[in-house]
Amino acid sequence: MSRRSRGSNTWEVRASTLARNTHNLIRDIVENLQVEPNPEKQLIALSVGDPTTFGNLNPPEQVLQAVRESNEWLSSRSYGPAKGHIEARVAVAQYSAHQGDISPEDVVLCSGCSHAIELAITVIADSGQNVLVPRPGFMIYKTVAEGLGINIKHYNLLPDQQWKIDLEDLENQIDDDTAAIVVINPSNPCGSVYDKGHLYEILDIASRNHVPIIADEIYEHFVFSNNEFTALSALSVDVPILTCGGLTKRFLVPGWRMGWVIIHDRHNIFGKEVRQGLSNLASRILGPNTLIQRALPAILTCTPQSFFDEVVLFIENQAKLAFDELRCAPGLRPIMPQGAMYMMIEIKLSLFPNFKNELQFVERLVAEQSVFCLPGQCFAYPNFMRIVLTVPEAILREACKRMIIFCKDHIVSRETIKEIESDIVTVPSDNEVICDNDTAHVA
Amino acid sequence: MSRRSRGSNTWEVRASTLARNTHNLIRDIVENLQVEPNPEKQLIALSVGDPTTFGNLNPPEQVLQAVRESNEWLSSRSYGPAKGHIEARVAVAQYSAHQGDISPEDVVLCSGCSHAIELAITVIADSGQNVLVPRPGFMIYKTVAEGLGINIKHYNLLPDQQWKIDLEDLENQIDDDTAAIVVINPSNPCGSVYDKGHLYEILDIASRNHVPIIADEIYEHFVFSNNEFTALSALSVDVPILTCGGLTKRFLVPGWRMGWVIIHDRHNIFGKEVRQGLSNLASRILGPNTLIQRALPAILTCTPQSFFDEVVLFIENQAKLAFDELRCAPGLRPIMPQGAMYMMIEIKLSLFPNFKNELQFVERLVAEQSVFCLPGQCFAYPNFMRIVLTVPEAILREACKRMIIFCKDHIVSRETIKEIESDIVTVPSDNEVICDNDTAHVA
Repeated sequence: MSRRSRGSNTWEVRASTLARNTHNLIRDIVENLQVEPNPEKQLIALSVGDPTTFGNLNPPEQVLQAVRESNEWLSSRSYGPAKGHIEARVAVAQYSAHQGDISPEDVVLCSGCSHAIELAITVIADSGQNVLVPRPGFMIYKTVAEGLGINIKHYNLLPDQQWKIDLEDLENQIDDDTAAIVVINPSNPCGSVYDKGHLYEILDIASRNHVPIIADEIYEHFVFSNNEFTALSALSVDVPILTCGGLTKRFLVPGWRMGWVIIHDRHNIFGKEVRQGLSNLASRILGPNTLIQRALPAILTCTPQSFFDEVVLFIENQAKLAFDELRCAPGLRPIMPQGAMYMMIEIKLSLFPNFKNELQFVERLVAEQSVFCLPGQCFAYPNFMRIVLTVPEAILREACKRMIIFCKDHIVSRETIKEIESDIVTVPSDNEVICDNDTAHVA
Repeated sequence: MSRRSRGSNTWEVRASTLARNTHNLIRDIVENLQVEPNPEKQLIALSVGDPTTFGNLNPPEQVLQAVRESNEWLSSRSYGPAKGHIEARVAVAQYSAHQGDISPEDVVLCSGCSHAIELAITVIADSGQNVLVPRPGFMIYKTVAEGLGINIKHYNLLPDQQWKIDLEDLENQIDDDTAAIVVINPSNPCGSVYDKGHLYEILDIASRNHVPIIADEIYEHFVFSNNEFTALSALSVDVPILTCGGLTKRFLVPGWRMGWVIIHDRHNIFGKEVRQGLSNLASRILGPNTLIQRALPAILTCTPQSFFDEVVLFIENQAKLAFDELRCAPGLRPIMPQGAMYMMIEIKLSLFPNFKNELQFVERLVAEQSVFCLPGQCFAYPNFMRIVLTVPEAILREACKRMIIFCKDHIVSRETIKEIESDIVTVPSDNEVICDNDTAHVA
């Protein structure tokens, strides 16, 4: 915003409202933390939601080969259409057939899933309206919405019911200004995976209240044994859905910024206007990198299922490892995920009198043990922290060991525990275990 | 915008104001044209501002090799910082040293120059403010601004003074709500290149009125013999400038979407707020493709000067060819460019009574001669058309031949010309030539 006084010889240039009101919540919180690691211990960052950081997880050879070939083609350097090359959109439509009947016209390619989320929110929500997002939940929605005057309202997830949605709370949050419900499944940061029954319950609320859904399914297919991933759109009868996805997590190429929005609108409720609106918004930055667009058909069809299976199995084993270790950490309550690549851990702060909140807990954990976990406030959910499960096994094991030492160092004495025991929340049955440390009974 | 009536069993989902008010003017105009080519002649599209379309202009081997190498690196797949990897920003700062003293902190990498322009506009202009853009001028500014309620106001360029800015008009357009002046140099669509004297005149107006400048220099260094490119920021004493650039045109990789905004703020007028605002906005879509980011240092340092020189020399020769041909086309007045890759051609519509405007002229040119030029209205400038100069020489030559035939077929008779001769605008001296066709004296 430039406010000038002509002739007054003064400059006053301000940033726009949009720029000032766009915030990256995670960065804002992390930047204000004291995260100076213990110089005697190598830092282990369990904070970064990037599976490629440690170098142990790599895209399959077929994906790299597809880009090698694409790099030699003339058409991989030219401008593409704003919504993406038709061949790439055909490939995404076929790859996403589990979401329902999709035509290439239903697909808009984006510069990563963040851009897909930006398009999905900005196409159906106006300034003054609100979008419902899960708590805990990934905060890009807040980043994208608030600068445009779109409000974020939270609905609660239930940690004791494997992070299912508190349906009553969800429905209570809907008001006349609600433009969309965001459903993140599998969930970042919770790692929960919703079964069909729960998805139907969510759709029922959206249908009765006539609210479209934005389905964030960037972790689609990331599910552990005995769980099944179902795309929300596959079950929808009438609710129009914008599904956000991309290569990022499943193909282990987050930096490539290849995402997409898929329009599911079998009853023509979005109609031409939302479809045209997405095209319009896509024309603001003219689509994702065409080098990757051209490689997309080969990437999506040539990657063997065994690659995906191995990655998911690795993460599942890591989840079991971390869960088995940390449920023996005094004062912590890990919640076993069913998919994605994260685990949420409750910090029973009443047992850690040195720390008045989870921010102080994670700060001291870095300072003493050089292990950095994201505080729950990054997901609008205090008293918890999130760890990523994609780090190499030996590092995860070491991190868990240090976290246990840290908890033992800071937890109140057994006597004090006995005194306050009546205050302690009962642990759900699937967390009940016998561990060989003094305070396991409180975890 | 979702307007629901709870319990009324009706859906009504509308696109947001932003989505509805975002338009790609060129696409809107072109989609409404009748552009059915003559089936007996191969279509020649002189409309597409993509130098790679015809396959005759390709990036240098060094650029492709840089990507081949980058594709093998782990770090080319990971998330990058929202503003881009520091190594890439260092490389851009060094590459852009001609713009003035730049630190890597002044550089924000973007998903192509369109995204750079979006960031530059949205960081300093608020809804209700206005941004001044040249007429004729590239219309992405309108696409990006109007959806956000930012108004576009035009200032005139002067076709008879090699498209210099009408300075009086520029200053008259500035009002209390003017957030920025956009200067496109070298110009799309005009191909003009401003000398230092003119750049100082522009800066003087910005300085006296305290209006920041957005310098669109995506065609930097694209200048023909006897012209010199000077970055506006290199001459600015006090005016804060956001310069938009990228790989797109100079390295012949428009599809790769690698652009940047460079902050020039030597008097700290933008201050922390605009700088922080750019960081905030960059976090909405998390930076451009890291595969190209990682290749950027090699791309910017290893590409030989001879590559650039050859491309520019080719385009200059094409400009001369098209100019020499078309100044002999009856009823047309080509204006010789000084750089970039386009030429504007005036259509003396008073000599073509079959066509009431230039839209009809280009429609019939396609229908009869299968040559498609962009009508001036795509640049808010009727009575002109723009051709691209990057097509292969033989094709350009053929296109000019067909355009001359078309003009001869449709121009009024010699007798009628004599009758209306007093109405004809005098041709500037550098366009005065003797051509061997009947009506050359009017071109």
